[in-house]
Amino acid sequence: MFDYGARVQRLQQTMADRGVDAAVFSVGADLPYLTGYTATPTERLTVLVVPQDGTPTLVVPQLEAPRVEPGAFTLTSWGETEDPVSLAASSVDTPRLVAAGDQMWSVFLLAFQKEWPNADWVSATELTKGLRIRKEPAEIDALRRAAHAVDRVMARIPSEVAFAGRTEREVSRQIAEMVLEEGHETAGFAIVGSGPNGASPHHEASDRVMEDGDLVVCDFGGSMDGYQSDSTRTFSIGEPSEKQFEVHSVVAAANEAGRSAVGPGVPCQEVDRAARAVIEEAGYGESFIHRTGHGIGLEVHEHPYMVEGNELQLEEGMTFSVEPGIYLPGEFGIRIEDIVACGSEDGDTLNQSLRGLFQVS
Amino acid sequence: MFDYGARVQRLQQTMADRGVDAAVFSVGADLPYLTGYTATPTERLTVLVVPQDGTPTLVVPQLEAPRVEPGAFTLTSWGETEDPVSLAASSVDTPRLVAAGDQMWSVFLLAFQKEWPNADWVSATELTKGLRIRKEPAEIDALRRAAHAVDRVMARIPSEVAFAGRTEREVSRQIAEMVLEEGHETAGFAIVGSGPNGASPHHEASDRVMEDGDLVVCDFGGSMDGYQSDSTRTFSIGEPSEKQFEVHSVVAAANEAGRSAVGPGVPCQEVDRAARAVIEEAGYGESFIHRTGHGIGLEVHEHPYMVEGNELQLEEGMTFSVEPGIYLPGEFGIRIEDIVACGSEDGDTLNQSLRGLFQVS
Repeated sequence: MFDYGARVQRLQQTMADRGVDAAVFSVGADLPYLTGYTATPTERLTVLVVPQDGTPTLVVPQLEAPRVEPGAFTLTSWGETEDPVSLAASSVDTPRLVAAGDQMWSVFLLAFQKEWPNADWVSATELTKGLRIRKEPAEIDALRRAAHAVDRVMARIPSEVAFAGRTEREVSRQIAEMVLEEGHETAGFAIVGSGPNGASPHHEASDRVMEDGDLVVCDFGGSMDGYQSDSTRTFSIGEPSEKQFEVHSVVAAANEAGRSAVGPGVPCQEVDRAARAVIEEAGYGESFIHRTGHGIGLEVHEHPYMVEGNELQLEEGMTFSVEPGIYLPGEFGIRIEDIVACGSEDGDTLNQSLRGLFQVS
Repeated sequence: MFDYGARVQRLQQTMADRGVDAAVFSVGADLPYLTGYTATPTERLTVLVVPQDGTPTLVVPQLEAPRVEPGAFTLTSWGETEDPVSLAASSVDTPRLVAAGDQMWSVFLLAFQKEWPNADWVSATELTKGLRIRKEPAEIDALRRAAHAVDRVMARIPSEVAFAGRTEREVSRQIAEMVLEEGHETAGFAIVGSGPNGASPHHEASDRVMEDGDLVVCDFGGSMDGYQSDSTRTFSIGEPSEKQFEVHSVVAAANEAGRSAVGPGVPCQEVDRAARAVIEEAGYGESFIHRTGHGIGLEVHEHPYMVEGNELQLEEGMTFSVEPGIYLPGEFGIRIEDIVACGSEDGDTLNQSLRGLFQVS
């Protein structure tokens, strides 16, 4: 499906441009982007060592070697009593400038630094960000399929999920199950923030029993064919109050404004500003306490970020969330989130579920 | 439940003994061990900065601050456009020797190294391993409760889970659901390795449809009150063959031998050797391709490791798995895994489910 060899070559070209002699990738999405293989996040090191020129070496624990499909790399496995860092380091000439994958555990970076005591280190994001940030058409297709799968879950919620009298945790588990039923291989998160809990944007799900009159922020997603979904809608248990309805309208307008601002050449911060302006004009500026969005692809949060100060200009193929929210401590929270792909002229919203304040029971 | 202040003091004593001026902890279990708070593994940095003397500072993203319960630290939050690393670094005097938590993302370690260009770095494992490796009685109680919960799942499997005609993935999901039903807050993993897939120790679960005559390795666990469970039994769909039955007996004897070797003063590698000797004597030495066990606590894999070369002597309160296996490529795999706590005289096996080769259908 993807041409991993071509991706490695583009990375090596970037390394040559910047004088980076070697790059090491472990847990995180750079490794599957470059090889199709994902490292298990454990104390047993998996690492891809990419020289500026030549074939990369993938070093994996012996007992995980059977999981690796052959690819554009040399496979080396290490036994339980071997040192994987020195094995990995020996696969390239001693480098002067090395790039480390962002999410590689510090314990392994420290070990590589000991192995190559005279090397300087940089973050590999500087190399891979430019490659990964513009999605290939097949990647956008995958993100769209994942978005439509969570859209189907959103559409099922009012008729299939009972809220009043149940805990957030129970509903979270039911939603996660529905995400799997709709074709995801994992349900990474299923935030259910009811009543005052909704006012904490990263509240997950608690034992709070929900009741009539609550607003409930449902923010969920996961991985489908390796690509991530992430969408949020806010539901009302029973009839919403006038204030709840009004604040929801503001957030919906902010979401619309953010999505409408998308287009090639538009700085990321302008998407944030467009959504934020609507909320500020309505008098809730202090209650929108996070950035407007994050890139999405192999990772649920990746570049580009829709945040004040980010002057990066959008380009065709960039994919990210637009998710304004208003959080009123002690009362409720509301967030509406869609994934948008920057097209050749404007934004293409991948999520298609309706954005009203739907009543549930 | 736990005295976090006392744990921080013990850490600071260890830092003083080793001349470590500051320690930084982000994702990973050291942070919840020291504070009760767990960092979300995202690009938004959460970090605890512990000076050798004085109150630690917990730096969290502003939108996650509402989740933090007050503790033996100063809480500082950073806004979406601030730099968390410089904020964290400014909370202590410029250190000469710094310890980094094992699983902190490399991108953050590189940023701290830029902030403190003259500091030397060591892995914080050297500081925290000695603290975390001997469990407090309340921690062993928590591990026992988690072990008994997965024991209940094991006991339910023969009567409640249908194997033949279903995919590994379907059964994996059913088992994960049962782990949650039995009181876990997460079901971290549910390996279902059937037939030849069982011969790959870290195979997870595939779309392979299982059939009569398969052996099925079921290895699952998760987190209950923050502490991990991890147990493995192997089931037979229908009547096992003579060879399957014989190999299972060898693994069961190896499991028993490994657990029986446990006691204070015994080097970890002796537990590995005891289990391995049984398998070698039966002629399957080459087919036991992994270490015998790993420590378990807040993390599913932590110190101490039961592996050749580890001369660390067991002490009362150490908790770890004993999980020998035999893997026959193209045929089947068998593993039997229990969590054991080293007591004052011998090993206390926390898992209590039966270890026979149970038939399922």
